[in-house]
Amino acid sequence: MDLLSIKDPSFIRELTMEQLQELSNDIRQFLIKKLSITGGHIGPNLGVVELTIALHKMFDSPNDKILWDVGHQSYVHKILTGRAKDFGTLRQYKGLCGFPKRSESDHDVWETGHSSTSLSAAMGMAIARDIKKENHFIVPVIGDGALTGGMALEALNHIGHEKKNMIVILNDNEMSIAPNVGALHNVLGRLRTAGKYNWVKDELESFLKKIPAVGGKVASTAERLKDSLKYLLVSGVFFEELGFTYLGPIDGHNFDDLFENLKYAKKTEGPVLLHVVTKKGKGYYPAETDTIGTWHGPGPYKIETGDFVKPVNSPPAWSKVVSETVRRIAREDDRIVAITPAMTVGSKLEGYQEEFPDRIYDVGIAEQHATTMAAGLAVGHMKPYLTIYSTFLQRAYDQIVHDICRQKLNVFIGIDRAGLVGADGETHQGVFDIAFLRHLPNMVLMMPKDENEGQHMVYTAMKYDDGPIAMRFPRGNGLGVPMDEKLKTIPIGTWEVLKEGRDAVILTFGTTIPMAMEASRILEKYGVQVRVVNARFIKPLDEQLLSKILDENIPILTIEEAVLQGGFGSSVIEFASDHRYSNSSIERMGIPDKFIEHGSVSELLHEIGLTTENIVQKIGNMTKKIVKRA
Amino acid sequence: MDLLSIKDPSFIRELTMEQLQELSNDIRQFLIKKLSITGGHIGPNLGVVELTIALHKMFDSPNDKILWDVGHQSYVHKILTGRAKDFGTLRQYKGLCGFPKRSESDHDVWETGHSSTSLSAAMGMAIARDIKKENHFIVPVIGDGALTGGMALEALNHIGHEKKNMIVILNDNEMSIAPNVGALHNVLGRLRTAGKYNWVKDELESFLKKIPAVGGKVASTAERLKDSLKYLLVSGVFFEELGFTYLGPIDGHNFDDLFENLKYAKKTEGPVLLHVVTKKGKGYYPAETDTIGTWHGPGPYKIETGDFVKPVNSPPAWSKVVSETVRRIAREDDRIVAITPAMTVGSKLEGYQEEFPDRIYDVGIAEQHATTMAAGLAVGHMKPYLTIYSTFLQRAYDQIVHDICRQKLNVFIGIDRAGLVGADGETHQGVFDIAFLRHLPNMVLMMPKDENEGQHMVYTAMKYDDGPIAMRFPRGNGLGVPMDEKLKTIPIGTWEVLKEGRDAVILTFGTTIPMAMEASRILEKYGVQVRVVNARFIKPLDEQLLSKILDENIPILTIEEAVLQGGFGSSVIEFASDHRYSNSSIERMGIPDKFIEHGSVSELLHEIGLTTENIVQKIGNMTKKIVKRA
Repeated sequence: MDLLSIKDPSFIRELTMEQLQELSNDIRQFLIKKLSITGGHIGPNLGVVELTIALHKMFDSPNDKILWDVGHQSYVHKILTGRAKDFGTLRQYKGLCGFPKRSESDHDVWETGHSSTSLSAAMGMAIARDIKKENHFIVPVIGDGALTGGMALEALNHIGHEKKNMIVILNDNEMSIAPNVGALHNVLGRLRTAGKYNWVKDELESFLKKIPAVGGKVASTAERLKDSLKYLLVSGVFFEELGFTYLGPIDGHNFDDLFENLKYAKKTEGPVLLHVVTKKGKGYYPAETDTIGTWHGPGPYKIETGDFVKPVNSPPAWSKVVSETVRRIAREDDRIVAITPAMTVGSKLEGYQEEFPDRIYDVGIAEQHATTMAAGLAVGHMKPYLTIYSTFLQRAYDQIVHDICRQKLNVFIGIDRAGLVGADGETHQGVFDIAFLRHLPNMVLMMPKDENEGQHMVYTAMKYDDGPIAMRFPRGNGLGVPMDEKLKTIPIGTWEVLKEGRDAVILTFGTTIPMAMEASRILEKYGVQVRVVNARFIKPLDEQLLSKILDENIPILTIEEAVLQGGFGSSVIEFASDHRYSNSSIERMGIPDKFIEHGSVSELLHEIGLTTENIVQKIGNMTKKIVKRA
Repeated sequence: MDLLSIKDPSFIRELTMEQLQELSNDIRQFLIKKLSITGGHIGPNLGVVELTIALHKMFDSPNDKILWDVGHQSYVHKILTGRAKDFGTLRQYKGLCGFPKRSESDHDVWETGHSSTSLSAAMGMAIARDIKKENHFIVPVIGDGALTGGMALEALNHIGHEKKNMIVILNDNEMSIAPNVGALHNVLGRLRTAGKYNWVKDELESFLKKIPAVGGKVASTAERLKDSLKYLLVSGVFFEELGFTYLGPIDGHNFDDLFENLKYAKKTEGPVLLHVVTKKGKGYYPAETDTIGTWHGPGPYKIETGDFVKPVNSPPAWSKVVSETVRRIAREDDRIVAITPAMTVGSKLEGYQEEFPDRIYDVGIAEQHATTMAAGLAVGHMKPYLTIYSTFLQRAYDQIVHDICRQKLNVFIGIDRAGLVGADGETHQGVFDIAFLRHLPNMVLMMPKDENEGQHMVYTAMKYDDGPIAMRFPRGNGLGVPMDEKLKTIPIGTWEVLKEGRDAVILTFGTTIPMAMEASRILEKYGVQVRVVNARFIKPLDEQLLSKILDENIPILTIEEAVLQGGFGSSVIEFASDHRYSNSSIERMGIPDKFIEHGSVSELLHEIGLTTENIVQKIGNMTKKIVKRA
């Protein structure tokens, strides 16, 4: 059918079973084709085609509320709610968001990006509904991976206790982004295979009826035994214990099963958990047979072969450089233990894992636990390497404050995807970490200018034994610089002058160094000599060098790909103020006080004015020289 | 026996059962007496006397690692590890810390204060032990309340999966700080009462043996039935499902039971959870019969009567003023729903709860869930009042960023215990919230100068409908100012001049206003006219007033009872820098870059130099006038 003509999901209710199958096929073909061009979360979406259709058939969205946990599996939902026509712009600047977005559609009732939020949000909505005596269904859809996140477990506990009406869809595809870990995963595995036990139930009940009621102890024993059947044989004992009515597991690609169980769930009082087993990548062979998560959210690919379209000869990925350096150092330092919350692939730790299978822990989506476990390892005199994406590190803020920094433990935090991340958009931008880390006592925070300095910083962090130390590094690839053979330590709190100049100084670090260098070269043509300093230590500052610069009383521009408020530039003006420098000419460039949506990193930098051109302009103004771009 | 002479816990191993009982009694009497003078966590500690003795008898601390979750129940442990003599200084400046402290004793292997961290830390220590092929026990002691915290659940999931050797002591006293909530609590309740089922087990097994093995389906049915017994009758199915060997529940005041089960646990491979039921306040009648948490951590009391020693006619507590104002407004605004993570009593919400039982949710220790649930309520067009202590709000940072601020939802966050909290010390100081909130887009952050302004700010927040708004307020009592009858809104982002003056300006808010006013009065005597501004909006700043002040080009001093880095003062110098004010004379007073330990608030303020005297001195220097304190 013509997916582009869909306005809202009401048409689904009229479709025959055959038409539903056809719709599923059409959606799959549409996704496979569209995402081969734009890239996107193909695996998760191919897995929920029937489930999403079934939800929109059985529920009346947006009156009924469907919440997509994490949200990267919401593409089918977007197609069914009138957004097929926008898929050419998926995850592109000003285009369709890769996650649910309230401004896009009334059907997107809850925005996601980070995992494990849907149950808590659903609970809030259920309370609101009941206070207002409204009558609608609330249906959070959560993956088995997201379920291991602490806040989802907190929510299960509370929902089970309060007995609010809610239909939780557990979308169990046996992996989150990477293959799943955790005991809960084993529980789900047992439930999955328990399907074959169902026949036993009826048999047993009739069997038990035959046990003579001989009174006294034995009779009550038999009664208890009957109760126990519910636990063992209906399965789902884990969720039943928490207060849910457990349904399933059912085949998430079978409409009959979906309709029957959703119908039953709608009639059930109190919270229901419907366990739906789906296949990630269903219907596209390369994605369906993926076992490690490569097809979770790839870039463009060739449909026929499943080959990824990649730029040739691109420099190594940042994650790879960092993880391989950790691996290299781990050969000589057996204190090193790597910890990742479900990001073994994303953080490119496969090589490390292969070489040191006993010194790496993927804890699943559980950033809090990962962080405090790292603290525990440090107490045990190991040297934990905790690597978490900047945006997800937000979830471990208290653990960093209370467990790591306060106890001054030797944990090395690798902050991956720091800065703007591009297509994943506002939920994933790694722009707050400087502002939420630099005010913490005992914390050392650094960012390298290129992958060669990056490997030395990793080495520096591994040798550092005076408390926590963190290194930010960006998403994407390095600059392709030559790599030193021998690793060396960089003295803590030292900056580096990359280019001399006496008219003005740029203080910056990481990804914004190239644009600062370019601006400096341009300004040179206009007779403005701009010094560029690699301020690689964000905390502590290079106070000696900074004092010297402030003594010169020349304009200073700080540049950071991070929020301005409380950021690096802020620490520079704090220092100047504390040391009573009368130099008023310190200006700051960075990310303004708003959330930055999706788009390519260069588009986003342009939107917020973090460009070479603006640097040239600003320095020109500060040095009172009129500069026009050549 | 003479508790003061205890050097380390090894002596316990030699004691007879009678001597152990005597030791328990002596410790109880010691605690009841000492804490009647200093105050402290009497309830939790009286509950774990036998448990702590048993742990130190059965384990070889510090070789074996005992971790106290939350840590307020570590007093008995402190007595048994040679610190009885220090109890006169408990929770006092430079005195014995109320929580485990590594610098105090080798027996304190893990520092706590915030809840739910012990399991993750224990897992880290277990990994370290196994990599180093060491051989010792790791014994985290966690309460039933702390177990509902998301990171504890994340850790249970991981520990159960990895099957590391570890003995988790679940100290189940049927309440956390306040009576417990959550489905998990119900599970524990069922386990507790299931004790009486134990006799059934043996009966059943012999009964089942009599079932004839008739082959085929029925035989396998019977087999399955036997398996199911383990689940139902040994109880603990919830923990067993997660991969733990579950033992208990046992009486935590019975040495025989404790020894027997700990002995068994030590011999068991893989993770064990020993469910110990204890009675909070055991052995002191007023504490033992407490049902709402009054005796969790009271101040000084009269031993004979159980009456609290309180200053007469003290002004109302801040928490009370805020909660009662919310209650008052809730009478006319039925959108209001209060949310607290286990702090109904601490946040003085009892009155509200009594009047609006259907519009308050105590979610247990689950700050993440509480925060995102508030976001869900806001999506449902309610007006949630989320109240969390500043230090615990750290745990909800990502939920504030990702769920509330990003979606710009109308949540009112009451930040209780903001600023220095005194006796609870470094784990509980509420000094980071400005630095971790003010860089978030859409956030409004304010702090009132007194409880009258406080009630108007609550009203302002309840009327505000353009996104999240937060109000900080301190621990302890208000100033005793007269309260306006009628509530009014305060325009967002407006400051207030409290005292005129043309020589210098102090910008401050909240608790530091009185010292600023006093300093201003003192300086007046020396001919220095200092303006004092109530900078009640920390974000957004009153840019109009601030510009006017900066235009005057007079010295500015910012004062805050919060960390300096990235704090309020930092935002003032950011503004000055961004608007190119050449006024170099902005200085900042606040909390320096270190963790602040326990003591009275005034002692701590003195330690960090946040005093009237220093303000006088600083302004004197800034205005180049020599000022000596009268």
